Amino acid sequence: MKNIKGGICAPQGFKANGIVAHIRGNKDVKDLSLIVSDVPCSAAATYTTNKVKGAPLTVTKQHLEDGQAKAIICNSGNANTCNSNGIELANQVCDLVADALSIDANDVIVASTGVIGQPMSLEPFASHMDELVAGLNVNGSMDAELGIMTTDTKPKEFAVEFELDGKVCHLGAIAKGSGMIHPNMATMLAFVTSDVAISSAMLDEMVHEVVPDTFNMVSVDGDTSTNDMLVVLANGLAGNAVITTKDDNYALMKEALFDICVQLSQGIAKDGEGATKLLTCHTVGASTKEIAKKVAKSVITSSLFKAAMFGKDANWGRILCAIGYTDAEFDINRVEVDLSSRVGKFKVCVNGMGVEFSEDFALEVLTEDEILIDVDLHSGDYEATAWGCDLTYDYVKINGDYRT
Amino acid sequence: MKNIKGGICAPQGFKANGIVAHIRGNKDVKDLSLIVSDVPCSAAATYTTNKVKGAPLTVTKQHLEDGQAKAIICNSGNANTCNSNGIELANQVCDLVADALSIDANDVIVASTGVIGQPMSLEPFASHMDELVAGLNVNGSMDAELGIMTTDTKPKEFAVEFELDGKVCHLGAIAKGSGMIHPNMATMLAFVTSDVAISSAMLDEMVHEVVPDTFNMVSVDGDTSTNDMLVVLANGLAGNAVITTKDDNYALMKEALFDICVQLSQGIAKDGEGATKLLTCHTVGASTKEIAKKVAKSVITSSLFKAAMFGKDANWGRILCAIGYTDAEFDINRVEVDLSSRVGKFKVCVNGMGVEFSEDFALEVLTEDEILIDVDLHSGDYEATAWGCDLTYDYVKINGDYRT
Repeated sequence: MKNIKGGICAPQGFKANGIVAHIRGNKDVKDLSLIVSDVPCSAAATYTTNKVKGAPLTVTKQHLEDGQAKAIICNSGNANTCNSNGIELANQVCDLVADALSIDANDVIVASTGVIGQPMSLEPFASHMDELVAGLNVNGSMDAELGIMTTDTKPKEFAVEFELDGKVCHLGAIAKGSGMIHPNMATMLAFVTSDVAISSAMLDEMVHEVVPDTFNMVSVDGDTSTNDMLVVLANGLAGNAVITTKDDNYALMKEALFDICVQLSQGIAKDGEGATKLLTCHTVGASTKEIAKKVAKSVITSSLFKAAMFGKDANWGRILCAIGYTDAEFDINRVEVDLSSRVGKFKVCVNGMGVEFSEDFALEVLTEDEILIDVDLHSGDYEATAWGCDLTYDYVKINGDYRT
Repeated sequence: MKNIKGGICAPQGFKANGIVAHIRGNKDVKDLSLIVSDVPCSAAATYTTNKVKGAPLTVTKQHLEDGQAKAIICNSGNANTCNSNGIELANQVCDLVADALSIDANDVIVASTGVIGQPMSLEPFASHMDELVAGLNVNGSMDAELGIMTTDTKPKEFAVEFELDGKVCHLGAIAKGSGMIHPNMATMLAFVTSDVAISSAMLDEMVHEVVPDTFNMVSVDGDTSTNDMLVVLANGLAGNAVITTKDDNYALMKEALFDICVQLSQGIAKDGEGATKLLTCHTVGASTKEIAKKVAKSVITSSLFKAAMFGKDANWGRILCAIGYTDAEFDINRVEVDLSSRVGKFKVCVNGMGVEFSEDFALEVLTEDEILIDVDLHSGDYEATAWGCDLTYDYVKINGDYRT
């Protein structure tokens, strides 16, 4: 498996585009994206666990009941959530796409991201649909990515290449996500394309096996959004024998999907609103997988620890504090914690007690922009990884005045 | 019942003091406090639920096994937590107090607050104990309060007067708490004194009845601290018949304790690190008390909503989002939300959908420093209140560089 360029257009048979439709007002930023497969795709998705769900999620769920889709339409600037006519609007958007592409509206996946509870107009979708469709092209992945970003500062576009049955296969992905990021599910839009041939039932299983250890292990601010959605489309053009059971090819594709989802998760965490650092907590030695996950998430979710990382302050007591309030049973007196970055590693805690370390070296380590927190519970064989970011002035600035 | 002055020295028979012992380094700030009753007290306490517990909590729990105490010693500047010799140190501090007051070390309650995992020296306690004891006086409540504060910007000192059996009774309290504030228990040190005569068993029951709806409903930053402790001492000098059952007098004293704990909770939330606003979420119409509490806490814990309040931004979608990710079952489509302050009230959401409001008036309402969020779930008769604060640049500043 290797990383390649091209994003969602790296797999065969996918085109994409992203344009300025002025859904975000008069700003000259892309805010409407379309992804289309030349042929029908097996499709699978996961959605936010928030009780408040964006109208597009309801419509997309209906459209995916048959496990098939051909296109994804997504706007930024308005979440189309808590609007009384939201579902009607989401259906009308699908109809516009279906008409323009001459496909069934049931094969269109719709997603929205932006402010919740703002009236949304169909007009920008209607007046820009021809332009959006006309511009579809095999190099359009980055345009599509730009169209779904909100407070994101960096595009998140990845692709990998691997082989099944001697056939070259691809997975490509774009994602948006910067604030309102917290499991479950953590909390973004991600669109993954593939040219692998796989049944929609197997694709659905695969998605639900991969998400718990990837997207659901990301937190930026503890707020689970209303519009999260991960969609995977697989159009089969790679020509492998269709995956219909959990065989070796299933395992290989799952490995590739896992890899893509880890890259997206890291990208989202690193681009958390206002973030200057990617924080990765790797917990080992837990007596269950669940405990390992809870501890890792607890550490990267702690506001105090996140603020300390922004300040390059090796205030490891806050790590231990966050481990300590995890809702899980383990012996706190066995806990060992190391902090590291590419310049080196230092130990801060053994058997739940502090150990001496060089403050100068600690500052050097924590000045880097990717910090690893290794936690060993010394209580078993399970491990987990969670991704987060530091808490900064800019998080407050961005969110103190988001609507204006 | 009425509010009075005097704090922990308002009840008869209590003296207090707070001095500069240089536990916080060379800073010229009070960091060591002592509260003493002239006579033995019934005593009860609750503690943090964090698995990492400060050494003083272990020692205090042992000393309160008999339900009796006479003195409370508390330092700021060092949490005495995760130190290998922490319990030994906490015991030595109690011994110093016991010697200086000629009382049993078992009657001394010990508490610490400050940085976790820093070595602590007995020296400042030993060298300042005579000064601390010599200065004990009936006007010492505020000095004691100053000695336990860390990043607090405002002292939290309250007292109430009420009658039992025609006898004038008092409850007084001081508290510290500003960051690392989150249920359970939320997350501070609070010392309450009283001259009511009550058995330690009844006092213990009362504390555990009052805390779930007061301190456990406060959140500043979602981080449950390692050193939380609420201690109530009641010395009986008011001369009422000793409360030994849950009779009318129990109910009256509980009402007074509830009132004091609400005032302390509001004081802690309002003085949350970096806070400019007190946020109070009052949830009604829930089908269970537990759901009402979870919803209220979810709203005042949301980083996104807290940041929006700092920005005076009526971004109510974030309130609905936080209600929506509450881990509880209810119908989101019945939810109604109002925002208000002393200048007025406006409705933002009915039946889970947005309603129009004047942005100008919203700005006027949200410019105030105490904001009320009324949530009606329209699903039952239970209600709950939670207290929090806005998320500001200063929270990040304070916590980005706390140790230096």
